[in-house]
Amino acid sequence: MRRAIELAYRGRGTTAPNPCVGAVLVRDGKIVAEGYHTRFGALHAERECLADAREKGVAPEGLTMYVTLEPCNHQGKTPPCTEGLIEAKVGTVVVGTRDPNPVAAGGVERLRRHGINVELGVCEQECLDLIGDFLLWQHSHSPYNILKMAATLDGKIASARNEPEPISGPESFARVHKLRSMVGAVVVGGNTFYADNPSLTCRMNDLPAGFIQPLAVVVTSRLPEAPAEHTLLRERSNRTIFMTSDKAARSKQADRLRERGTSVWPLPGEPGRLNLSPGFERLHAEQDCYYTLCEGGGRFAMSLIEQGLADEVVHFLTPRILGDNTAPSAYSGRDNVTMADTRDFRITRTERLGADIMLTLLAK
Amino acid sequence: MRRAIELAYRGRGTTAPNPCVGAVLVRDGKIVAEGYHTRFGALHAERECLADAREKGVAPEGLTMYVTLEPCNHQGKTPPCTEGLIEAKVGTVVVGTRDPNPVAAGGVERLRRHGINVELGVCEQECLDLIGDFLLWQHSHSPYNILKMAATLDGKIASARNEPEPISGPESFARVHKLRSMVGAVVVGGNTFYADNPSLTCRMNDLPAGFIQPLAVVVTSRLPEAPAEHTLLRERSNRTIFMTSDKAARSKQADRLRERGTSVWPLPGEPGRLNLSPGFERLHAEQDCYYTLCEGGGRFAMSLIEQGLADEVVHFLTPRILGDNTAPSAYSGRDNVTMADTRDFRITRTERLGADIMLTLLAK
Repeated sequence: MRRAIELAYRGRGTTAPNPCVGAVLVRDGKIVAEGYHTRFGALHAERECLADAREKGVAPEGLTMYVTLEPCNHQGKTPPCTEGLIEAKVGTVVVGTRDPNPVAAGGVERLRRHGINVELGVCEQECLDLIGDFLLWQHSHSPYNILKMAATLDGKIASARNEPEPISGPESFARVHKLRSMVGAVVVGGNTFYADNPSLTCRMNDLPAGFIQPLAVVVTSRLPEAPAEHTLLRERSNRTIFMTSDKAARSKQADRLRERGTSVWPLPGEPGRLNLSPGFERLHAEQDCYYTLCEGGGRFAMSLIEQGLADEVVHFLTPRILGDNTAPSAYSGRDNVTMADTRDFRITRTERLGADIMLTLLAK
Repeated sequence: MRRAIELAYRGRGTTAPNPCVGAVLVRDGKIVAEGYHTRFGALHAERECLADAREKGVAPEGLTMYVTLEPCNHQGKTPPCTEGLIEAKVGTVVVGTRDPNPVAAGGVERLRRHGINVELGVCEQECLDLIGDFLLWQHSHSPYNILKMAATLDGKIASARNEPEPISGPESFARVHKLRSMVGAVVVGGNTFYADNPSLTCRMNDLPAGFIQPLAVVVTSRLPEAPAEHTLLRERSNRTIFMTSDKAARSKQADRLRERGTSVWPLPGEPGRLNLSPGFERLHAEQDCYYTLCEGGGRFAMSLIEQGLADEVVHFLTPRILGDNTAPSAYSGRDNVTMADTRDFRITRTERLGADIMLTLLAK
């Protein structure tokens, strides 16, 4: 099942609004065929796996298929997977977790009615974590927000001077750009926008032809006075969105930005305490945005967490120590809190990236 | 070899001043016997491994032994390991790294003279990291200092109120006590002593009979006014050592501590910038201390690192976020530093401990 989960993650970013699914076919305890859902509209994982078996000359009859999600039982863009498994005469299907979508569910029962042995709930938590995005889309109108942070061992994201300086190594840097390649929007707070002057583009060597850069979103109560001074607004003014206070959205600065093709969206809430949720929902509704990558800084990150909008945290930990308590921390902006008030997560995945370690965390 | 390394670590704390060594015997790619150096004076890893083979009825003739360190070539408390390997007619010996001790070295050449095939330098970096303690003892008079830290994802070790509150989970807590069980002294800075009122004892269920608690060492420029108010001085006054400024060591408070059986050692350097090295050397010389566990706080940790005395860092990372930039960080006390001035480490081991992750780091 762990292999099926790994395979499933490869489809992340391109399957939306479908979930990521992976499948492997096993004979005598050995994997003989593999498949995953590669992109929306393409074959489902089970059928990919059966196709792989066919290509390799493996007869699936009587074998065991491990699949991360209950095989679908309805005719969508592709025929139901249950049918494919019944036709292939697979002996046993081991399912990670039930399909939460009522339209597609019922696969387990159908397989059993056709005499296929079904085991349910193997690595269930991991299989649920895998479709956290899909579960969110089922019950909300928000994109799945991935909060990315790169920090030292002492939790620092910059020196006290707050100059843009690289924290993590080249392998982590490459991974951030891979994350940018799979999201609809890259979102930063005002501090990052003004301090780092970022372009927020995905810079990878092997971008597919026709790749569309993610939108750039800046959340700030203070709109820029001189748009042309900022790389983002020089290079991609019409792909940039400012989310700001209601008052700022009605200001002269806002008009000046709009003249250059930049969107300015008002958010409810006081400056410094903007309510971010409507902004994300609008990204989903108007821009068809299924994923965002939220890249800090520390105060913006903490706002996201406090508002329950950090659906996943990807924390790049670099084995360096700054040692200056006055430097900005990876998550900040709260005060008068005790250790009993921490925001708690689960580490769901760890990966070594060069000298660094990448932690994936989900809410506890 | 990785298995041999894992075995070797089991001896850590009890082999000093010998290095930790592990060995496995392999037939047809499978491990058929294992051994490691368990404690000073006991059999070396190679002989333990051969004994294990004998017990299991495995004939070592012609087989391959993987051993983390070059087999010793001299008569010490036990006969030379090279002799054992030659007598056993082992076919090949795969060695992680050369013995840095000139007295014991030469094993590789002797084995080769007796027709045994020797391969050198397999997983060499890991095998060198394994004997970092031994390498230190070869060229210094200092104990091997393990700096232990427990911090949140944002690098915080306490809330801004600086009250003693647990950071990491019960599995990490248990590991800290296991670390305490293998060291000669537990060392803390003054902030930790005054804020946490710790006892610094090893509290484990399965301590061996006759276990001697590690010494407690407090490094502080400010000696306590009322010794009896501190748990440590109530319970273990004659097992506690204060390392302090020259001036404080000649004060009335120092005399009062000495009356209770507590040692007070002067260190060179200004208050707040004490030179720690002579204190550690004295621990080694007078107390036969081969390892210390240095347990913070943040300023003391950074002093250790800045003075090049943190031989190993064990960082317990708990997936919690405090989010308050004013709370004390895991490593602190420097100022006016840029990201180019960080102290850089290598992550050599990672281990999941319940919800937490334990990182072992060595200087880069």
